[in-house]
Amino acid sequence: MSLLTVGSVAFDAIETPFGKTDKIIGGAGTFIAIASSYFQKNQRLVSVVGEDFPQDTLDDLRVRGVDLQGLQIKSGEKTFFWSGKYHNDMNSRDTLVTELNVLEHFDPIIPSSYQGTEFLMLGNLSPTVQRLVIERLEERPKLIAMDTMNFWMDIAWDELMKTLRLVDVLIINDEEARQLSKEFSLVKAAKKIKSMGPKILVIKKGEHGALLFHGEDVFFAPALPLEDVFDPTGAGDTFAGGFMGYLSTVEEVNFENLKRAIIVGSAMASFCVEKFGTERLMTLTDREIENRVQKFVNLVQFDMIAAINA
Amino acid sequence: MSLLTVGSVAFDAIETPFGKTDKIIGGAGTFIAIASSYFQKNQRLVSVVGEDFPQDTLDDLRVRGVDLQGLQIKSGEKTFFWSGKYHNDMNSRDTLVTELNVLEHFDPIIPSSYQGTEFLMLGNLSPTVQRLVIERLEERPKLIAMDTMNFWMDIAWDELMKTLRLVDVLIINDEEARQLSKEFSLVKAAKKIKSMGPKILVIKKGEHGALLFHGEDVFFAPALPLEDVFDPTGAGDTFAGGFMGYLSTVEEVNFENLKRAIIVGSAMASFCVEKFGTERLMTLTDREIENRVQKFVNLVQFDMIAAINA
Repeated sequence: MSLLTVGSVAFDAIETPFGKTDKIIGGAGTFIAIASSYFQKNQRLVSVVGEDFPQDTLDDLRVRGVDLQGLQIKSGEKTFFWSGKYHNDMNSRDTLVTELNVLEHFDPIIPSSYQGTEFLMLGNLSPTVQRLVIERLEERPKLIAMDTMNFWMDIAWDELMKTLRLVDVLIINDEEARQLSKEFSLVKAAKKIKSMGPKILVIKKGEHGALLFHGEDVFFAPALPLEDVFDPTGAGDTFAGGFMGYLSTVEEVNFENLKRAIIVGSAMASFCVEKFGTERLMTLTDREIENRVQKFVNLVQFDMIAAINA
Repeated sequence: MSLLTVGSVAFDAIETPFGKTDKIIGGAGTFIAIASSYFQKNQRLVSVVGEDFPQDTLDDLRVRGVDLQGLQIKSGEKTFFWSGKYHNDMNSRDTLVTELNVLEHFDPIIPSSYQGTEFLMLGNLSPTVQRLVIERLEERPKLIAMDTMNFWMDIAWDELMKTLRLVDVLIINDEEARQLSKEFSLVKAAKKIKSMGPKILVIKKGEHGALLFHGEDVFFAPALPLEDVFDPTGAGDTFAGGFMGYLSTVEEVNFENLKRAIIVGSAMASFCVEKFGTERLMTLTDREIENRVQKFVNLVQFDMIAAINA
């Protein structure tokens, strides 16, 4: 099996109550590819950077099994740059700078060697670019997942609806689910969103965990209660990376494996927030990941006997 | 085993986006006693009402096994009355009216037949009244749990600290835990609060579930994702009632049984919000409760195999 990720590879500059970074490596595609690399060793990336992007980081990705034939390096141009500042509660942030640069006219070229990829993860990008990728794959992947955000609902609703009809899994946060469905109740939101195309919906609730809707089934995964969230940047993409990385290794995409994939994604996201940017994700061991997953098992497992002792 | 509940028995008038009630039956003591009555048949209640309180409701409580010798009925006085209006998100509300009436000078008299009660649940009341109850019990109960609220932290901090030192379990919501501990992280908050006295802490997060802290162990129980929350009034007290009702029937208060008690409390709270006030809680069957508990099992259970397929 193989996984193709399409998403931004970027520079971020982040300010949190705990500190401030200069330009560091960020981007949805980066977080997804790194997180999934712990599970899926056969990976491809479609993205674009400028000539200012460090060769070291590309080497790091290659070492992790990420094929970079689909990563365009635009000479004379600059890499996408985002800068943001988190508020004290770490749940909200202000965007300070967004420089689209190479992302402004991104044409997602699919190398011929990428044809036949079984799993496709579309990171948050314009729904038009996301759909272009699907259309350029000669054979439909076994599973297509996508992320999106409020911005595209505001400015590209019709395009978003067209793309949504083509995907199997939508991974968004609670605020986005509410805007997309115009429903406050996430149960009602899930019903509406599933009628837009995706048969599987994952709603991320940050520190409150994540919900999986699949047919009539619902699964709830907690977030790990943490003493500190150091930097939430990329946690959602890391979740998606762990989710798709794990899912692309299993025999069958069914409810039981989707539940496991959500737990794996949650575990990966819990590492991401421990340090700035991708730092913590670069040094994980298999044992650390298994131990973290076990913490999730311990956090929610209970053995129910009859509630009422007659 | 037996359970003594101390808490308000009151009138509420509630407005939600779904409708509006006249004066209906409310009060922490009422919700706790009704919810726990499905599990614990040997119950006592210490509270106070005015002569305006309906005899029918008292009969309903007696039928449920609640001994009312400790319920004072003050002739010529009026029952505590609260009126509130929920906002559209159902997570915040405005208090429209608070008439303390009989609660203003409440002296919690303990009937001699209540001495020796093994489990004590102190609903949200002034910490001075809560402590008075503990002091008036000749033999310390096997387990003392209490609820409190921001109001007492604002006006009776020292009294609250004295009472907290005497209890085993504190059941509060996330906002209250943050105010009590002056910590935003609930993990840090839990550590601080446990140093104030309670060795067991339950933090209710409303639609986001509940956390149990016990020694070094943490357990997370989800809330049931619901299409509609009709009226959240009393959900927290119903949770506490289910929790203590169940716990007072088990052999030993250990982590495994505390986890089950949290799930039972969550299940009972999920019924409470389906109708106004105590309405839904009055008609439950054992089978409905067991089925609802099973929904919680299904919502979170997964069978993790190795995350990483080597």
